[in-house]
Amino acid sequence: MYSVMIARYKYFPEVKTKGMSAAPRLVLFTSEHSHYSIKKAGAALGFGSENVVLLSTDERGRVIPADLEAKILDVKQKGYHPLFVNATAGSTVYGAFDPINEIADICEKYDMWLHVDGAWGGGLLMSRKHRHKFSGVERANSVTWNPHKMMGVPLQCSAILVREKGILAGCNSMCAGYLFQPDKQYDVSYDTGDKAIQCGRHVDIFKFWLMWKAKGTIGFEQHIDKCLDLSQYLYDKIRNRQGYEMVFQGVPQHTNVCFWYIPPSLRGLEHNSEEYREKLHKVAPKIKAMMMESGTTMVGYQPQGQKVNFFRMVVSNPAALQSDIDFLIDEIERLGHDL
Amino acid sequence: MYSVMIARYKYFPEVKTKGMSAAPRLVLFTSEHSHYSIKKAGAALGFGSENVVLLSTDERGRVIPADLEAKILDVKQKGYHPLFVNATAGSTVYGAFDPINEIADICEKYDMWLHVDGAWGGGLLMSRKHRHKFSGVERANSVTWNPHKMMGVPLQCSAILVREKGILAGCNSMCAGYLFQPDKQYDVSYDTGDKAIQCGRHVDIFKFWLMWKAKGTIGFEQHIDKCLDLSQYLYDKIRNRQGYEMVFQGVPQHTNVCFWYIPPSLRGLEHNSEEYREKLHKVAPKIKAMMMESGTTMVGYQPQGQKVNFFRMVVSNPAALQSDIDFLIDEIERLGHDL
Repeated sequence: MYSVMIARYKYFPEVKTKGMSAAPRLVLFTSEHSHYSIKKAGAALGFGSENVVLLSTDERGRVIPADLEAKILDVKQKGYHPLFVNATAGSTVYGAFDPINEIADICEKYDMWLHVDGAWGGGLLMSRKHRHKFSGVERANSVTWNPHKMMGVPLQCSAILVREKGILAGCNSMCAGYLFQPDKQYDVSYDTGDKAIQCGRHVDIFKFWLMWKAKGTIGFEQHIDKCLDLSQYLYDKIRNRQGYEMVFQGVPQHTNVCFWYIPPSLRGLEHNSEEYREKLHKVAPKIKAMMMESGTTMVGYQPQGQKVNFFRMVVSNPAALQSDIDFLIDEIERLGHDL
Repeated sequence: MYSVMIARYKYFPEVKTKGMSAAPRLVLFTSEHSHYSIKKAGAALGFGSENVVLLSTDERGRVIPADLEAKILDVKQKGYHPLFVNATAGSTVYGAFDPINEIADICEKYDMWLHVDGAWGGGLLMSRKHRHKFSGVERANSVTWNPHKMMGVPLQCSAILVREKGILAGCNSMCAGYLFQPDKQYDVSYDTGDKAIQCGRHVDIFKFWLMWKAKGTIGFEQHIDKCLDLSQYLYDKIRNRQGYEMVFQGVPQHTNVCFWYIPPSLRGLEHNSEEYREKLHKVAPKIKAMMMESGTTMVGYQPQGQKVNFFRMVVSNPAALQSDIDFLIDEIERLGHDL
């Protein structure tokens, strides 16, 4: 949300004082798989959610760059101004990484702000094995990263990194005389509060700093690699197992393993039939309810687009073991077998 | 900030989807003494800071209702739409309480949203002796209250109370399918997250709940009354004391005691002279710097409007004693005497 505001300031600084009517109709672009906060930012900051254009994705949930360019041209033809593209690095449901370099080429061509939402995927930057999924992130104007997700920092801890020096102050500072006195006896360049959007608040990033000091970069790398290894272990175990169907093919890019469990009673039905879809849609909620009632384990589910409810298993706790994954599979089968 | 967004939704719900261009130029009104967050909200949410109109105040820093009405009429004549009035209950510097009832009359007359910013003053609602300063708050459309200020709840803990049922959901909900599944096995009316502007976050209000359970309403009342008593003790001791001058006359409405200390070297100067103003402007910063260096005590200062730097002593810790106040006065005189 914040990054959209900064982008607006960058290209239309007069909006800060004169309001959104001082700018042409501004359009934001983001994946149909992206987090709902982008649409919410559109509504909250005065763009309007109709001016948040959703981009088509491939089978793995990654933005198709050609679709972005086509939609930019469409918007320009209508006389609107394409302002901002959000590239997701680790989408909420599929854990998909949009192709940042190809999106950055398009942003450069049309002079647009490129934001990378690494809220969920940011932790992979700690891993020499997985950080290539962020290739091109160095070209972004802004990046968000929530160490409270994959990194295990206690909720909440969010970082926003901005390329252009001074733009945060330009965008936010209000120079309140009762807070940011210039005549203090110390170097007031340490008074950085005026460049932030909030006033009094936690120093949440300290939690991350402390963990980093304690675990080190190597420790975080092991944490990340372990979680991705466990996800691949789950993927390898179920992708050809009877009663399982993967939501998308191939090794997941993040720890998100998305799958359906098909109880024996459904296995004989035609997969494209409405009856099959309706019945399958109810399986994951039922199994999750039984998991919660039995208190043994828990795994989330949701629909996505035309796809009926499926399980989304994510691993972010590096203390998890392969035996935990084995248990999860057994438990899903135990609870779901007779549905 | 949030309250301004809700007000916009109330009167112009189409802004949520179509953007600020779907509304006429919308104008916000707030005291020249109010917190800078109102102006910041104007900039961030697409109103523009020029559309935040500052209201004149009396000598005590309280909004003059006639000035509000005059400025509303002025805005209407220009063809703009007066949307929102912020009444401050406990201003940051003077601790002033705007006359809520008189402002509410005007808001009713012109069909405007009335917000009461009780961030700092809200604690006084716990005190039978002091809550009359909030008279009329029951007529507000929204109220903010930061228990992390006067109430002593660890930073951060902020509450927003809204009169109209359902408006938060209308304003904020985005119905993300991967978070707010309707087919959970429990009563999903407990899933209230979609009505808030943030996604993952602390349950900060729990800290306040726990303190309230432990101290009780009576305990909070004693806390508040003790702090206000101590402020009045300070006021009574310095208002006629040689070398002190009060920034405004009369017993402070909140715990804010605003005063200048005049070192002997300045006492013979003409008070309206530029020399006097320039010298006095430097006194509070110098004394505060010496306080910090000696490590004995600390009290904030700031200028306000045409008034040069003055001390603003606030009491929010009920464990403070009259002897602490006595020490503060002695210390100011010890450090400032030879300036």
